[in-house]
Amino acid sequence: MGREGIRRRELIAGGMAVVAGGALTGADGTLAAEGPRSRRSAGGRLYDVAVVGAGLAGLNAARVVRDAGRSVIVLEARQRVGGRNLDHEIAPGKVVELGGEWAGPGQDRVLGLARDLGVRTFATYSRGDSVYFRAGGELQAYSGGIPPVDPVSLGELATTIAELNRMATSVPVDAPWTAPSAFTWDRQTCQTWISENISSPVARNLTELAIRSVYGEEPKQISLLDLLQAIGSVGGDLNTLIGSSQSIRFVGGPQQLSKILARRLGDAVRMGVAITAISQGTDVTLHSTAGNSYRARRAIVTVPKTLAGRITFDPPLPPALDQFLQRQPNGSVVKVNAIYRTPFWREKGLNGSATSEVGPIRVTYDNSPPDGFPGVLVGFMEGDDSRAFYGVGRAARRRAALASFARYFGPEALRPIAYVDLDWAREPFTRGAYGSINPPGVLTSLHDPTAEAFGALHYASSDSSALWSGYMDGAIRSGEQAAAAALASL
Amino acid sequence: MGREGIRRRELIAGGMAVVAGGALTGADGTLAAEGPRSRRSAGGRLYDVAVVGAGLAGLNAARVVRDAGRSVIVLEARQRVGGRNLDHEIAPGKVVELGGEWAGPGQDRVLGLARDLGVRTFATYSRGDSVYFRAGGELQAYSGGIPPVDPVSLGELATTIAELNRMATSVPVDAPWTAPSAFTWDRQTCQTWISENISSPVARNLTELAIRSVYGEEPKQISLLDLLQAIGSVGGDLNTLIGSSQSIRFVGGPQQLSKILARRLGDAVRMGVAITAISQGTDVTLHSTAGNSYRARRAIVTVPKTLAGRITFDPPLPPALDQFLQRQPNGSVVKVNAIYRTPFWREKGLNGSATSEVGPIRVTYDNSPPDGFPGVLVGFMEGDDSRAFYGVGRAARRRAALASFARYFGPEALRPIAYVDLDWAREPFTRGAYGSINPPGVLTSLHDPTAEAFGALHYASSDSSALWSGYMDGAIRSGEQAAAAALASL
Repeated sequence: MGREGIRRRELIAGGMAVVAGGALTGADGTLAAEGPRSRRSAGGRLYDVAVVGAGLAGLNAARVVRDAGRSVIVLEARQRVGGRNLDHEIAPGKVVELGGEWAGPGQDRVLGLARDLGVRTFATYSRGDSVYFRAGGELQAYSGGIPPVDPVSLGELATTIAELNRMATSVPVDAPWTAPSAFTWDRQTCQTWISENISSPVARNLTELAIRSVYGEEPKQISLLDLLQAIGSVGGDLNTLIGSSQSIRFVGGPQQLSKILARRLGDAVRMGVAITAISQGTDVTLHSTAGNSYRARRAIVTVPKTLAGRITFDPPLPPALDQFLQRQPNGSVVKVNAIYRTPFWREKGLNGSATSEVGPIRVTYDNSPPDGFPGVLVGFMEGDDSRAFYGVGRAARRRAALASFARYFGPEALRPIAYVDLDWAREPFTRGAYGSINPPGVLTSLHDPTAEAFGALHYASSDSSALWSGYMDGAIRSGEQAAAAALASL
Repeated sequence: MGREGIRRRELIAGGMAVVAGGALTGADGTLAAEGPRSRRSAGGRLYDVAVVGAGLAGLNAARVVRDAGRSVIVLEARQRVGGRNLDHEIAPGKVVELGGEWAGPGQDRVLGLARDLGVRTFATYSRGDSVYFRAGGELQAYSGGIPPVDPVSLGELATTIAELNRMATSVPVDAPWTAPSAFTWDRQTCQTWISENISSPVARNLTELAIRSVYGEEPKQISLLDLLQAIGSVGGDLNTLIGSSQSIRFVGGPQQLSKILARRLGDAVRMGVAITAISQGTDVTLHSTAGNSYRARRAIVTVPKTLAGRITFDPPLPPALDQFLQRQPNGSVVKVNAIYRTPFWREKGLNGSATSEVGPIRVTYDNSPPDGFPGVLVGFMEGDDSRAFYGVGRAARRRAALASFARYFGPEALRPIAYVDLDWAREPFTRGAYGSINPPGVLTSLHDPTAEAFGALHYASSDSSALWSGYMDGAIRSGEQAAAAALASL
């Protein structure tokens, strides 16, 4: 387990220990915790809706339920809220984001929620040049969104983006399997498409990098149809996925959204409650690892799909849903933040953005607080780049990360005043990042059975939102929709 | 839940109920069962080795451990042994196989085990002609292994088999990711390869059918590298996978192998013990849904990979193993047996084998007992053909299955004296068939982390055997190897 910060071990019944995902630096003392001895029987209170998971999907679902005047309980496995949002405090009121970080134009739900909750936004730092690092070792500064590659590669990149955008227009975002070419696009991986449609190695490399930066996974694992759906999900332009969606940040960090929502929900949010079994009879009963149970008329599961499949359901999941959940792996990302006294790259006329043909960190951004102090660089090890460090100690990972930063911004990058990273594949209650992928053939074989209720059970996740899938915005939408469906069925 | 025969519901602690996979028709009264009240504390007996799962992998692992003079306990979730072997008695001493059924030349382990245990074998009925059913409705009898297609398609089929066999020669069966072309072959699905290398629709259809009959899954979901490994795993010839591996049957059914092994292990085999959590400290502690725990110095997990990933491990699984298990879905198969007073097709000069361009059943065999009475036809709904029946009642599934048989063998097929099928995707302790698949990119991104021990935990399954992967023979090999590794570490 490789991240800095406090860790807690919760000893539970049966000798099992569950490692919590990370401690909160914020004020969460008001949240109720499940004590190891405070057994609640199945005869306890009957809630209208129980929500599994206190990320943005779960907390917004709970908000909608509460606003409708219905009773709700939110059961969160960790000792913190936020799910894939996790901020790490580096100075009073200043954080670095270890999980979800950005919003962008058009993401009305997350920007609206931030406004409602009093969380301000600011623009990702972008003054000055970006840098492009080539496999041969050459570093080149450039302005604008496209690295300064040769004209042939540049032309192929433009054609690639235009062609993918064109294909995406025929893919319904809420039912991609109905696209006229669904079978052809779902039978192949993104890597197959790249190999057959892009001839310049430079353009291939950049396209692979773009896909990796969307999913945290290799193009060889992802269905082309999934990529086309993702393009549609953000409004139809691949440039949005790899560009403007990273343009807006939250003052004090986006995990605040979850913290504030949880605070308003008060003792409806229970921490340290890992749900391992859900049974449906007249009501829904949710069983925790600690042996407690919770009853509700409806339940909304908001954990990652691959973890939802690990819950023991009674009656068992219908075969389509079970087979689908066997096929929804999470990608793999290590997110790295290096903190410096000053954003020294700015003095060189650089904006902190790097794009690199080589790993382990191929994408970076300036991640400093709004006032620029301290200076922070954020970088991502994605897919196989992250897997190269699975069996390696933290020190080696840090060395490799800082060496990447130094290649792009100079030797000053080797001496941060602090360093914090998070390997999301090691988080027991997330198990990867950025989210789930559809391997080839899954969408056309199984569609998306999570879109429909299974008895009294509903599912919500950023990864299953038709709009802004994979973003905080999508999480909010998905949670709201699941809550509306659950309420409508009451 | 769609199969005939007795079902049991076991009520366990916490209000959860687990539906057992199916009742035994054989003599299993000697096997110990976990009573709901007989709680064993973690302070109970310390076994040398605990085995999770009483299929052929688990039982053979236990046999090896016992033969080495070490103590062993086998924990089986169902009220029966055999795992993916499940025989259904249709007359005294006569069964139809609802799960694994055949062996073939070169499968020394399973044939040797049968000999050792006194289970005789017989040849799959093959006298007379096979039939080939075309999409247009034309039925044609033929002899030999290749359907009577047009010369162009025939030529392409021969080329396809030769080319896949040639490619497989460079794929090491125990480390396919080291093949020189591993990336190219792993970045694409089998369907991509078919689309790009076979132009005749007839030859495409037959190749897709062949792959579906190996995996119970669509070629669009499977890595080409996985297929090449599977070819190597049976000795290097795709014809073996789709031909001679179905040539040998077991008198009285192959589940006998598991039943006899379990009987010899006596009360070391515990039924109705579903393991949901495994913790490692000084020893290994295995926790059941009923709240019991079992202690051992080593453990061998033999449940399907997708279900192994659903166990809660403490410490958590290493990231590579967890990510791998998120990517090992099972295929989907409904196996159908229709029982007739006589094998009426034999009187027409037919051997009961059909190959069809249309579903839901595209492959059949004569599945009669050795003496030919009663007559039995077995057929398979594989991949998407099986999924079309997920939301459909048993009656409709039966109608569709018998209609398929009737297309191939005449209207007599519509009036069986008995009918039994099993939708393996609905079996809570298997969750699909024939076994696990590798989606594209998984083998080259993650290799196979189940091949190495995780602390005191070992893994065995037919699906992870380098030789005869997916067959009973592979299950025995895998179990023996895991036991040897566990014993060597004691």
